[in-house]
Amino acid sequence: MNKAFDVTEYIHQTGRAARAAARPIAAASTAAKNAALLFIAETLEKREAHLLDENTADVRDARKADLAAALIDRLTLTPKTIAAMAQGMRQIAALPDPVGAIDGMRTQPSGIQVGRMRVPIGVIGIIYESRPNVTVDAAGLCLKSGNAVLLRGGSEAARSNQALAACIAAGLKAAQLPEAAVQVIETTDRAAVGEMIRRPEYLDLIIPRGGRGLIERIAAEARVPVLKHLDGNCHLFVDESADAERAVRVLDNAKTRRYGVCGAMESLLVHQSRMHDILPRIASIFADKGVEMRGCERTRGALPSFAVQAASDEDWACEYLAPIVSIKVVADLDEAIAHIERYGSHHTDGILTNDWRNAQRFLREVDSASVMVNASTQFADGFEYGLGAEIGISTDKLHARGPVGLEGLTTQKYVVLGDGSVRG
Amino acid sequence: MNKAFDVTEYIHQTGRAARAAARPIAAASTAAKNAALLFIAETLEKREAHLLDENTADVRDARKADLAAALIDRLTLTPKTIAAMAQGMRQIAALPDPVGAIDGMRTQPSGIQVGRMRVPIGVIGIIYESRPNVTVDAAGLCLKSGNAVLLRGGSEAARSNQALAACIAAGLKAAQLPEAAVQVIETTDRAAVGEMIRRPEYLDLIIPRGGRGLIERIAAEARVPVLKHLDGNCHLFVDESADAERAVRVLDNAKTRRYGVCGAMESLLVHQSRMHDILPRIASIFADKGVEMRGCERTRGALPSFAVQAASDEDWACEYLAPIVSIKVVADLDEAIAHIERYGSHHTDGILTNDWRNAQRFLREVDSASVMVNASTQFADGFEYGLGAEIGISTDKLHARGPVGLEGLTTQKYVVLGDGSVRG
Repeated sequence: MNKAFDVTEYIHQTGRAARAAARPIAAASTAAKNAALLFIAETLEKREAHLLDENTADVRDARKADLAAALIDRLTLTPKTIAAMAQGMRQIAALPDPVGAIDGMRTQPSGIQVGRMRVPIGVIGIIYESRPNVTVDAAGLCLKSGNAVLLRGGSEAARSNQALAACIAAGLKAAQLPEAAVQVIETTDRAAVGEMIRRPEYLDLIIPRGGRGLIERIAAEARVPVLKHLDGNCHLFVDESADAERAVRVLDNAKTRRYGVCGAMESLLVHQSRMHDILPRIASIFADKGVEMRGCERTRGALPSFAVQAASDEDWACEYLAPIVSIKVVADLDEAIAHIERYGSHHTDGILTNDWRNAQRFLREVDSASVMVNASTQFADGFEYGLGAEIGISTDKLHARGPVGLEGLTTQKYVVLGDGSVRG
Repeated sequence: MNKAFDVTEYIHQTGRAARAAARPIAAASTAAKNAALLFIAETLEKREAHLLDENTADVRDARKADLAAALIDRLTLTPKTIAAMAQGMRQIAALPDPVGAIDGMRTQPSGIQVGRMRVPIGVIGIIYESRPNVTVDAAGLCLKSGNAVLLRGGSEAARSNQALAACIAAGLKAAQLPEAAVQVIETTDRAAVGEMIRRPEYLDLIIPRGGRGLIERIAAEARVPVLKHLDGNCHLFVDESADAERAVRVLDNAKTRRYGVCGAMESLLVHQSRMHDILPRIASIFADKGVEMRGCERTRGALPSFAVQAASDEDWACEYLAPIVSIKVVADLDEAIAHIERYGSHHTDGILTNDWRNAQRFLREVDSASVMVNASTQFADGFEYGLGAEIGISTDKLHARGPVGLEGLTTQKYVVLGDGSVRG
């Protein structure tokens, strides 16, 4: 980019083009959208060598810039990840089209029929870090749901993203859909993000995908609605009546299946009546697997033969995303719910119990995007919930809450059918 | 209020109290909420004389301050409006409780069952002008939907609102629900609004009810999500195949039933093939009823015996809320849709047609909160849509769009039921 490059003007141009593409993409037939998705899949496979070349150049620069190994790992494409992206497009093509579905059409006393039609949101902006697969996934989900999209990936993935964008454009073109329906922001100028999030005339929704810092900065400055995916400080509460065998199995899975996912259990609450049977059994598994334990006084008292650090207030509030767990012994369900309300992040929380009333109370009273009974918090995922796809997990309360699939990328408008009907 | 009054501290206090009341009101039984609503209705009726006294004092001050007659009219309570408020509470009590309903519970391949439970949003802030009935309506809707609410009415209605708040508090108390679930902001200090809209720790949603200026100012400054109810620049398009008799009846109703409502037709689009039959017939009715017409050149040509002003670009974009209508002759459906897209406000737009494909295209392609076929735009209303109540009409696309009833005051969380289930 030369010095004369004007980022404001650039966002105006791409924004106008996206807005103009929103109407034809919203009205596109399911057949045309699916044809584009399948053609994108084919093109990704055909251009594998080219995609790997462009990605290699990105990775080389990232290494030169001494980027962290985890970041380089996420940036790197392989024949396997390219095949997975293509497969993802075919999966999205196979999902039912959410657009146009009409719910709840009923005749009212006046004689008019009223229902709600599911429709695209319009233009969506996705702001993400250096994971090139997000470019393809997000484009596919927006396309299937009839939305135009502006994609702004991390600058480290610029060449990979442009090469992927060309595959997407080829698919749109082959299906005679407007290429401007999916645009990858070409500039790596950081000001582009600031421009995007302040333009409700071009964008209807911003979905940031990345770390807490990125998301909070965007939410603080945006004039466009933002769908946030913040921390998962997830809890499981072992109730008095929990089945020991099952509880231990679920706790193990919730903590150790994967440490770095937002649905991982970060905090374990144990009813005081189970601190001497279930707690030592799961502690033994954690110790074997190298999970660091930080507990309250009673936890430490109940686990004299384990190395359990004293937990601080920061621990109760912490999303470790690591082999660490905080543990608290509580007097009853009320104390458990109060603890979750005070320290939790309203992402995913569960109870392990055999008590009907306590299960019902937990489901009703815990104010989290997902509430669970006798299941691992690691189930918090769009595919596990049957959505068929996932653009993120919303920790917001409005519009979409929890795992967001195609439906979360749409909205509903009222449809009113009359026969020359007038209001009295 | 004395000089030492600290509005920031006041909003902290009421916000904390509202947040604390949110959990018990969310968990309240349907029976308790209905008991409170019915007791509020009774109390309003019992205290009629006191309410009228307090209101008379407000009205007297408003007259002294030379407020506009329309504002004084909205501010004034009568035995009839008090009876209507009481009746409104009884109607809300009779509606089904939206909280706790579980939709779409399905067993997934892993064996877990996943569904979505409807739950309150939390704490809602309603900011409105000097219509005391909003105090009672909004409190009733928030209570039934399990939300705590902070009500901030216009300062001119301060005494009326306090007297109404006391009736509401009596109802909550009688049903053993926390009185802080409904709080009327006592200070008339304008800074209170600025504090409220910047406190996501206390409020989950702001609903401003009032003029465009108020709503835009709040939306621009808010850090809490805002549900906006902006302009209704509503269109009806008379298609080539429209039935003349029915079209004239609907157009008459859409414009003249009431002029000041957001669902009133402000702009009439006529297919060129009907400019010589339907257009003169409706123009004759408009002329008889004193509706001022502003038209395009072809409209003026088709109506030589009527006084039709030339319409400007401002006319096409204008929500008159008055006996004025803009009229444009268009070549076809495409031009009609393009005009609505360019000048409309995405509130309510309709087509009058007997053509199946054009009706379907209009419903699908016009991006408005309500789209109608062969019906008057004045049907845009929560009661007419069968919602049983209405807190406003959303012109936003996310969360709730169009008339908002109890469901729009709730959200959904995922419920996951397992049997010691772990993720593979």
